[in-house]
Amino acid sequence: MQNPASIGYFFNPSSVAVIGASETKGTIGYTIFANMKNAGKKVFAVNPNHSKVQGERSYPSVLHIGKKIDLAVIAVPARAVPGALQECMQRSVKAVIIVSSGFSEIGQSALAQKVGGLIKKYPKTRVMGPNCVGVLDSYSRVDTTFFERSRMRHPKKGSLSFISQSGALGSMIIDWAATQQFGISKFASYGNAMDVDEADLLEYLGSDPKTKVIAAYLEGAKSGRKFYEVAKRVSKKKPIVVLKGGKNEQTRIAAASHTGSLTGSSQVYDAIFRQSGIIEADDLLDLFSIAKLLEEEPLPKGNRVQIITNGGGFGIVTADQLLANNLPLARLTAGTVKKLRRQMPMATISNPVDLLGDADAARYRNAIGACLADKNVDILIVLALFNLPTLEAKSLSILEKARKGAKKPVIVISIGSDYTQDYLEQIEKAGFTTFSYPGAAARAIGGITKYARYLGKSGRAK
Amino acid sequence: MQNPASIGYFFNPSSVAVIGASETKGTIGYTIFANMKNAGKKVFAVNPNHSKVQGERSYPSVLHIGKKIDLAVIAVPARAVPGALQECMQRSVKAVIIVSSGFSEIGQSALAQKVGGLIKKYPKTRVMGPNCVGVLDSYSRVDTTFFERSRMRHPKKGSLSFISQSGALGSMIIDWAATQQFGISKFASYGNAMDVDEADLLEYLGSDPKTKVIAAYLEGAKSGRKFYEVAKRVSKKKPIVVLKGGKNEQTRIAAASHTGSLTGSSQVYDAIFRQSGIIEADDLLDLFSIAKLLEEEPLPKGNRVQIITNGGGFGIVTADQLLANNLPLARLTAGTVKKLRRQMPMATISNPVDLLGDADAARYRNAIGACLADKNVDILIVLALFNLPTLEAKSLSILEKARKGAKKPVIVISIGSDYTQDYLEQIEKAGFTTFSYPGAAARAIGGITKYARYLGKSGRAK
Repeated sequence: MQNPASIGYFFNPSSVAVIGASETKGTIGYTIFANMKNAGKKVFAVNPNHSKVQGERSYPSVLHIGKKIDLAVIAVPARAVPGALQECMQRSVKAVIIVSSGFSEIGQSALAQKVGGLIKKYPKTRVMGPNCVGVLDSYSRVDTTFFERSRMRHPKKGSLSFISQSGALGSMIIDWAATQQFGISKFASYGNAMDVDEADLLEYLGSDPKTKVIAAYLEGAKSGRKFYEVAKRVSKKKPIVVLKGGKNEQTRIAAASHTGSLTGSSQVYDAIFRQSGIIEADDLLDLFSIAKLLEEEPLPKGNRVQIITNGGGFGIVTADQLLANNLPLARLTAGTVKKLRRQMPMATISNPVDLLGDADAARYRNAIGACLADKNVDILIVLALFNLPTLEAKSLSILEKARKGAKKPVIVISIGSDYTQDYLEQIEKAGFTTFSYPGAAARAIGGITKYARYLGKSGRAK
Repeated sequence: MQNPASIGYFFNPSSVAVIGASETKGTIGYTIFANMKNAGKKVFAVNPNHSKVQGERSYPSVLHIGKKIDLAVIAVPARAVPGALQECMQRSVKAVIIVSSGFSEIGQSALAQKVGGLIKKYPKTRVMGPNCVGVLDSYSRVDTTFFERSRMRHPKKGSLSFISQSGALGSMIIDWAATQQFGISKFASYGNAMDVDEADLLEYLGSDPKTKVIAAYLEGAKSGRKFYEVAKRVSKKKPIVVLKGGKNEQTRIAAASHTGSLTGSSQVYDAIFRQSGIIEADDLLDLFSIAKLLEEEPLPKGNRVQIITNGGGFGIVTADQLLANNLPLARLTAGTVKKLRRQMPMATISNPVDLLGDADAARYRNAIGACLADKNVDILIVLALFNLPTLEAKSLSILEKARKGAKKPVIVISIGSDYTQDYLEQIEKAGFTTFSYPGAAARAIGGITKYARYLGKSGRAK
């Protein structure tokens, strides 16, 4: 295993060369060079056809740059990649990202073999790609994603890191993440994984202090054994959520042609994931629902869920979703039931606790406080139809106080238009995790309880 | 069976009395009366404590109104409901909505019995409720939903009608629907269903020319037999999608206390739904995903789905979701494969058809046209990562033309922030159905293909 520290140059280089840096707006070479300049890095443009690019001196090749280069980004046509890569390696560049496509994924194995040969010959230079989008780091601001800013937003800073074999899918997710309530630490799309692979990135993110949760889209691990061992070690320190593409015999074939690697059978991956403590997501939405819950809430001690609601039907639908995901409904202790009945004689004190349509913030406070204190409750879901007239804006601070100090996950679910969305945003800012759909919340809770159980059995790393 | 025409008075009355009409902003009696005035209906305020309400003459009771009343809305405390209802019935009011709660759903069976007795004695007056939100009709503008407009948006006009046993859940969904791309024809929340029940509403909507698709949230049918027979008849004319609340033994009990009716076992409902051609949804999101697809797209002839993509990983994830929902991937005919290979030698012509990251609108046009013409394709999914630089705004009209005349469902899926969302909205306006998550799209396709198969076997009504 190579030193994971070498991977750090991809995310936090002090100098960057962009090979194929361009003057033409909208091209990949233009956008990456502009991104790097914006990031405030020491940048070098490499383009033999220009003496200046975007106002900076342009070099005919990296061999002409007299300074140390930590990271080089190669954005030239595939046929020119081996030459550019060799020059980087001769210059002992620490990390190279090859964004160019046109290698083994489309059957051009001669070019791929040349790149592979160089990787073997110069092991000190770590190579990401080819056929990838590279990296985005919210903290160092390194950014090799090459979509126009008007087409792709960047998420806020956070503690979720995301690796994706697929560059386009990964970038789309990053763009979507910007509209969601969670923040991103690092993103890496590693494409054909000829050198740096999912295991290297997992290892690195496992020791990255700015990463709390790791999410991954994988089509296949380059080495199942290496991936398993790294994942097993890392998942004891921080959770890893994976969406596996190519789960079926038919889609495995498509995955093979997509990133040029044959993916293992679904049963093999199921076993690797289960035994290494990886949380498997079933869909894109679930991947991020689970990651969000892990990022924002404490791990539960068990899987018994209590529901509080001001809408009977909403409570029932949510309870059905929990049961469909094998999550038991909590049974409040007799003491809690008695206390809540005394405080709120009209409400239904069961599971769900139905505070009725005229519930005000005080009823919520009573119910949240009592349920969080109940030893039979591991996780609390608070359903709130905010369009009902008795819930006022001040409810929020009351909800906040009711929760204070409780070390159990609390999830607030509501659906609606502007009014409700604004409310949900405020609730997120107040430190709660919010969801719109009971089904998505139930699947996410299923994911984190499985991980909590795994840690309970296998022990958490010190 | 009573004449379903009588149900029409709930949705399209020429005169409306609001019993409990109020001067106090924010109260239910205020909002409903204001809504009805806004709708341009002939309105009568009933409130013995005022001579005028919101500028209109107020009557001490409906007995004092000398004019014909089609619809009365009762919004007074539960104990005053029987008296008000009896007066309406004496005046032969055609339809009465009792929004008040506090009946059998919270164990007040004496009041419920009084209401039940009146319903039996005066069968010509149809009663909706108690414990309901009533109706919203986008065309007649009748609106008894009582949430402040600032808290609840109203959706645009459309051809989807939605009935909900739960008023709060139903209203929340209506509010949410306003943020989605589909329109609503009629909404009814019928609460405890002491007279008008789900079967009556189904029957009415079945013959309503402004309703193309019926969606329902049910906790239990008042009469399983009546419901089955009506559903079976209606589903041959138009699709019915149902989300059943209380699917588990534990949630059945909660449902019983919520709307005061004991719900049948899950197996019984499964059988009723299957045999009557009802499409069952598993979650709120699915209920509306399926309804949207039914509203916007033709029914497919079979269930073979072809995917076209410009992102390999996105295609694989989507294919996995289809297979997980038992939907086979279409196999293009040799002629189609040959044609597309000639037009686009670099693209992967399989399922998914991968047009690669530099796909432009012309590649999409080729692929969409050829796949829609292929006899092995029943349904087409078009995945498009719009943040990739080669897809331009003009792509849209090209997509439109490529589809023209094809009688197969086409679904466009993309995820992202503003840029992508704007694009998706334009695509919806151009007549395509759009989704954000492959999983939701696959479940919705599963729903409509089951319905198409049911119709194929049982025959569609003339």
